[in-house]
Amino acid sequence: MSVVLGPQPERLRLRLDLGYDGTDFHGWAAQPGQRSVEGELASALTTLLRADPPLRLTVAGRTDAGVHARGQVAHVDVDPAAWAGLPGRSARTSERAAVVRLRGILPPDIAVRAVSVAPPGFDARFSALSRRYRYRLCDDPSRVDPLRRRDTVLVPRTLDVAAMTQVGTVLVGLHDFAAFCRRREGATTVRTLEEFSWARADDGALEARVVADAFCHSMVRALVGAAVAVGEGRYAVPVVAEILAARVRDPRVRVMPAHGLSLDEVRYPDDEQLAARAATARAVREPLENSGAPAPAGGRD
Amino acid sequence: MSVVLGPQPERLRLRLDLGYDGTDFHGWAAQPGQRSVEGELASALTTLLRADPPLRLTVAGRTDAGVHARGQVAHVDVDPAAWAGLPGRSARTSERAAVVRLRGILPPDIAVRAVSVAPPGFDARFSALSRRYRYRLCDDPSRVDPLRRRDTVLVPRTLDVAAMTQVGTVLVGLHDFAAFCRRREGATTVRTLEEFSWARADDGALEARVVADAFCHSMVRALVGAAVAVGEGRYAVPVVAEILAARVRDPRVRVMPAHGLSLDEVRYPDDEQLAARAATARAVREPLENSGAPAPAGGRD
Repeated sequence: MSVVLGPQPERLRLRLDLGYDGTDFHGWAAQPGQRSVEGELASALTTLLRADPPLRLTVAGRTDAGVHARGQVAHVDVDPAAWAGLPGRSARTSERAAVVRLRGILPPDIAVRAVSVAPPGFDARFSALSRRYRYRLCDDPSRVDPLRRRDTVLVPRTLDVAAMTQVGTVLVGLHDFAAFCRRREGATTVRTLEEFSWARADDGALEARVVADAFCHSMVRALVGAAVAVGEGRYAVPVVAEILAARVRDPRVRVMPAHGLSLDEVRYPDDEQLAARAATARAVREPLENSGAPAPAGGRD
Repeated sequence: MSVVLGPQPERLRLRLDLGYDGTDFHGWAAQPGQRSVEGELASALTTLLRADPPLRLTVAGRTDAGVHARGQVAHVDVDPAAWAGLPGRSARTSERAAVVRLRGILPPDIAVRAVSVAPPGFDARFSALSRRYRYRLCDDPSRVDPLRRRDTVLVPRTLDVAAMTQVGTVLVGLHDFAAFCRRREGATTVRTLEEFSWARADDGALEARVVADAFCHSMVRALVGAAVAVGEGRYAVPVVAEILAARVRDPRVRVMPAHGLSLDEVRYPDDEQLAARAATARAVREPLENSGAPAPAGGRD
């Protein structure tokens, strides 16, 4: 029995690259009675492909309410006949037609940037090698930009960027990040944090760049919270190392507001590595679910 | 009789530096029954200073409905006693207190970045040496960012940036820009365009940087429209030179949508030059009104 779940027989897997302004969504995941990115996207795809019943999506980064994305990736398994019904003599022109039509169907706070027939073995969640997030802070009231208020968090005092960069140095690497995660039964909190750096953007905002193989729930916002505490002088860098080592949630770590966060990029291996990567990631992150049953529709990665 | 109008006797002139997301405003200028930046700001200042009757504002760039600002400048003449009632032992601390209080009063789509007691001779409109605008275009659907949809205009095809840069070269200088302006009786359309350049921003958007001593109504959006036409290959650079030379509005020049435009900076001379600059600018741009009567509350500059 294979642990890598490809499309069902007679289904075609599509890769979707998309961005969204998370402000007016209750997060990625479809929930009854709530506006979600998944819900809007599934509905648009159902319209595009005249599918029935509603389509289900699998996503690389299951973002919380208010979190944005510029480089989100999802997959969906569709009826090949419906896909073939789109205009275009080649796969390439059908893909372009799908992007243009989805632009007409979707609300303005979601943009599908590309649609493509997924290569064999591709799984938006488990094939991913890494996720890159950005967190935006404004620590100078004289540079507040109302046009960026939806993705920028105002902090009341000037932050010590050098100290915050030190926090990144302490946290990067393979660690159990339980101190910075909301625990979930049966799921590991061990992750490889590849990068956690800070830089000033052109507009004066302070931007974190946070890259890991995967993230657990609220992890980026908690990592940023620890860095901001150090940047404000509330505690020193070695305290962050202690918090990490304790492997339990710590009240000194503030989970920062959702709206400063956006998923900027998801990286995948070369096509021939997609299936192997998915098998490895699934075995590590979903040990209890890894019995051939379908994985949940989206991973909190 | 002086042509430079300072504050009325017993009034204190404040300089306000501000930004706004113009999406939900009917432009800068207060209008009955419409939400305007001037209206919201005057109302907030009236609350802050317990002023009565409502205060009037003079602005550097009288932006249209939907146009944004990051570096707008305005002035307002207030009762010195009300200003002295703000907390703070020094002018500097009162200025900071005003910024903090205004943040609490104003809606989130306006941010006052600084309040300061204006130096003698300062007039937000007529003392200005130059205005710098930005116009944002996205010409690559695969890079559409829903978080920037409020200040970025999508154009359907890839633009020829080199040709658009040539348009800038043709237009820069002292010219009668009547071909790119909405005419107003008694007002000159002669302006000095100091810069009109194009560059790719970090996010892939194409950004125009447009600087002039002042602009007439819809001028930036018309200049950008001509550049986009050339960038799309609809006509060549010499046509733009012909249109400029004809000095009448030309249907080939599309006035671009408001929401791509933002006022990024207003430059002023050193303090000792403020009054002289105001006298010169007023004489050139308001010849019919230049008789000692108060200027209109805001200049379309």
